[in-house]
Amino acid sequence: MADPRFFTIAAPISLARLADEANAEIVNGDADDLFEDVASLDSAGPRDVSFLDNKKYRDQFQVSRAGACVVAPKMVERAPDGMALLVTDQPYLGYARIAQLFYPAVTKAPGIAETAHAPSSADIGQDVEIDPGAVIGERVSIGARSQIGANTVVGDGCVIGEDCGIGDNVTLSHCLNGLRVTLFPGVRIGQDGFGFARGPQGAVKVPQLGRVVIEDDVEIGANSTVDRGAGPDTIIGAGTMIDNLVQIGHNVRIGKHCVIVSQVGVSGSTELGTGVVVGGQTGFAGHLRIGDGAQIAARSGVMRNIDPGTRVGGFPAKPMRQWLREQANLERLTKKGK
Amino acid sequence: MADPRFFTIAAPISLARLADEANAEIVNGDADDLFEDVASLDSAGPRDVSFLDNKKYRDQFQVSRAGACVVAPKMVERAPDGMALLVTDQPYLGYARIAQLFYPAVTKAPGIAETAHAPSSADIGQDVEIDPGAVIGERVSIGARSQIGANTVVGDGCVIGEDCGIGDNVTLSHCLNGLRVTLFPGVRIGQDGFGFARGPQGAVKVPQLGRVVIEDDVEIGANSTVDRGAGPDTIIGAGTMIDNLVQIGHNVRIGKHCVIVSQVGVSGSTELGTGVVVGGQTGFAGHLRIGDGAQIAARSGVMRNIDPGTRVGGFPAKPMRQWLREQANLERLTKKGK
Amino acid sequence: MADPRFFTIAAPISLARLADEANAEIVNGDADDLFEDVASLDSAGPRDVSFLDNKKYRDQFQVSRAGACVVAPKMVERAPDGMALLVTDQPYLGYARIAQLFYPAVTKAPGIAETAHAPSSADIGQDVEIDPGAVIGERVSIGARSQIGANTVVGDGCVIGEDCGIGDNVTLSHCLNGLRVTLFPGVRIGQDGFGFARGPQGAVKVPQLGRVVIEDDVEIGANSTVDRGAGPDTIIGAGTMIDNLVQIGHNVRIGKHCVIVSQVGVSGSTELGTGVVVGGQTGFAGHLRIGDGAQIAARSGVMRNIDPGTRVGGFPAKPMRQWLREQANLERLTKKGK
Repeated sequence: MADPRFFTIAAPISLARLADEANAEIVNGDADDLFEDVASLDSAGPRDVSFLDNKKYRDQFQVSRAGACVVAPKMVERAPDGMALLVTDQPYLGYARIAQLFYPAVTKAPGIAETAHAPSSADIGQDVEIDPGAVIGERVSIGARSQIGANTVVGDGCVIGEDCGIGDNVTLSHCLNGLRVTLFPGVRIGQDGFGFARGPQGAVKVPQLGRVVIEDDVEIGANSTVDRGAGPDTIIGAGTMIDNLVQIGHNVRIGKHCVIVSQVGVSGSTELGTGVVVGGQTGFAGHLRIGDGAQIAARSGVMRNIDPGTRVGGFPAKPMRQWLREQANLERLTKKGK
Repeated sequence: MADPRFFTIAAPISLARLADEANAEIVNGDADDLFEDVASLDSAGPRDVSFLDNKKYRDQFQVSRAGACVVAPKMVERAPDGMALLVTDQPYLGYARIAQLFYPAVTKAPGIAETAHAPSSADIGQDVEIDPGAVIGERVSIGARSQIGANTVVGDGCVIGEDCGIGDNVTLSHCLNGLRVTLFPGVRIGQDGFGFARGPQGAVKVPQLGRVVIEDDVEIGANSTVDRGAGPDTIIGAGTMIDNLVQIGHNVRIGKHCVIVSQVGVSGSTELGTGVVVGGQTGFAGHLRIGDGAQIAARSGVMRNIDPGTRVGGFPAKPMRQWLREQANLERLTKKGK
Repeated sequence: MADPRFFTIAAPISLARLADEANAEIVNGDADDLFEDVASLDSAGPRDVSFLDNKKYRDQFQVSRAGACVVAPKMVERAPDGMALLVTDQPYLGYARIAQLFYPAVTKAPGIAETAHAPSSADIGQDVEIDPGAVIGERVSIGARSQIGANTVVGDGCVIGEDCGIGDNVTLSHCLNGLRVTLFPGVRIGQDGFGFARGPQGAVKVPQLGRVVIEDDVEIGANSTVDRGAGPDTIIGAGTMIDNLVQIGHNVRIGKHCVIVSQVGVSGSTELGTGVVVGGQTGFAGHLRIGDGAQIAARSGVMRNIDPGTRVGGFPAKPMRQWLREQANLERLTKKGK
């Protein structure tokens, strides 16, 4: 069970309710049976719900003591005796929804903490929570039910939509956030892009006159940084998930529903299409176009445009198979040469 | 036009004044004509000033509706009819200065916020702004007209010169900052370097007894980290520009007017000369010497000293051409072998 | 001498006391002689103690004016005349202890700052220091003599052991910290891991129900991030040293006494054994097992399990020698082909 110091559980829940939430069909189970928690296959007991989504865990599944399990149709006949099955084509998605049912998002305490700083020019919606030490700028707008974390700083004029969760120790400036945006602790949004001209007396800053536009349902991981545009805006498309310590340069446009893993860097003015997936520690040169649905392996160095739907890897990034073949070939050539 | 919620424009400005600021010559224009804003070539209208600095945008230039444009001499004859030209050998630099004229640095509100913490032992200059929640340590010195951002923490004894802009949520300790230093949100300066001896009961910390010295006109990007020296100081030379999420180890000496792009890591005791340019995500081993004017491509792994003025890339880093040739050769050898 | 604005020295100290602390034998010195400071070989004077641990500095040693020096037995006969020697098999460890003697850890001022926020439900031990602007959550437990930095945020229910040093601007949630844990400024512990299922309407968050467990004597560098577990905990083993800007994903288990250099990324569910050393900017794929005592070179991309005690490098990571041979071979093949 999750540590009750940190998590509050909403149990028990009936199998029928779970099936409904997971959009799954009940096999071998009684709709009225009650369940107490979610758990992994190896630790689950008869009152727990588990899931199987990865072949690697099939053996664990076959000996699991879980009372119920979310599985794909083809696994039904491998289930151990007595296990109730919640059958769906997308077991992990089903599990995600069930886990959310057991552990609903924490209801926070609306109100503005005494030590928060919120000027009268700020437009603060209903049931907003502003935590201690937060500093809200002039003319900021915060939508209903949003939370602003402790010691977070929201710069003048910023807009935060409804139902956003802005973490602790975050800094926002020059940005417009949509609905249900989640920013984790230490995120920095809207600072100047890295733009300057080199003159005889050193660098001369080019004023960065754009904004950061974060669309609905975006999530940005801890200590990631998103610079504002130089003239055009920097844009993070709806539903995009960004991990920790990622750098997004000025004028970058990230499409909708992209997934960007930790420590990626996207240089200025590069555009990612819809549904692009980027592995950790990858870097993109500036001014590139990455097509819809492209998949970039971890630790790639992308120096050219990438066609939609392609899978690339390596540095310079190239079709993933080609890169793997080249690495294998170098290994072979070297062994032979000994 | 830049979003007025975030930017304040100082317009109109005459062509004569713009030419003066850009150190440019007026061609095809009336010195008394007034302009309202800066804009990109494709979005500019007859009252906007644009610029052309990159061949890629030459086509846009030839059909641009910009009323005025900063260009190099050789582009004059390609200009569309009716466009006033501000001709200079350094169009981007000229543009930078014009944009600064339209969008001057924001004047902040001098004074110490009520919720800031500033002990009487601190020496705070004229017209300093200290924002809400900032915590100033004992015996800190802050020069005239500097700004300390909200929820920033300045450790005991730190020195901040005149006209500095220390962002929000920054942490400083054991450091001396020159004039006009800009630190973006989340920067961490002066914490212990990664120094310890391994003993029978585990790591024993080696006291880190140096400081961080940041010279004039340095800029350090969001969430970057600069450790203080172990004995000697860590030094960032005047005019150096550092991007976001960069790591500078203890005892590192960065020369003057260097440019260090995002996510670079410089290991302990490495020295960069004057005017070194380092591409994003590059790493340097410790105790290296990188010569003046060296250029290190993005994603390089530098394991040896680099001669002044050379261009290197790859991992292990080598002359850029050689690295590119090797990569091409591996591709060829692999294709042939199919 | 270390800058007195930042460091307080406890001098003089007798050679006998230094020898005792360094677990060293005095050669050529008078036990009663007094020393004033530590210094590097090239800057030390007759009242300073220095050390020689790296062959590179042997020449400096032979002409050093240091009054005393911590050295290995084999260096004794190379010492300059008149230098007192503190002889030990582990000179750097001996030096670390001597430097700690001259520069003992700063005693802070116990007490809760007026502008800190600490609810009555928090359990705060004896002689704890809570700095201005810190925000302590409900039911937090802080052990005796620990310090919580300025503007740091400790989430509800977190546990901090005795003698911990939590830096400024840190964010903690869902975590349990052992004794003598040091977290540098800007560290983020316990936020959600990067876990979601992809559904027809976009990503669906998978509740992250684990914690972060940080064992005794761990140190985590500035702006590093450690996500909490998805179900199991994320664990950082006792005595492990983590540098700046490192990312530790959910469910990762780091063994005891590991060393992880700056900008490393460890993907979800990967396990490092005891005493693993990881060079900077290395990345690990998820679900890997890295054996005890493995050494991973800087900038490696680790895609497979690593056997205990092996040294690997490159991308994909392989035995270090093999990787170096392959790189040399590619260089040779390319030169020949010219």
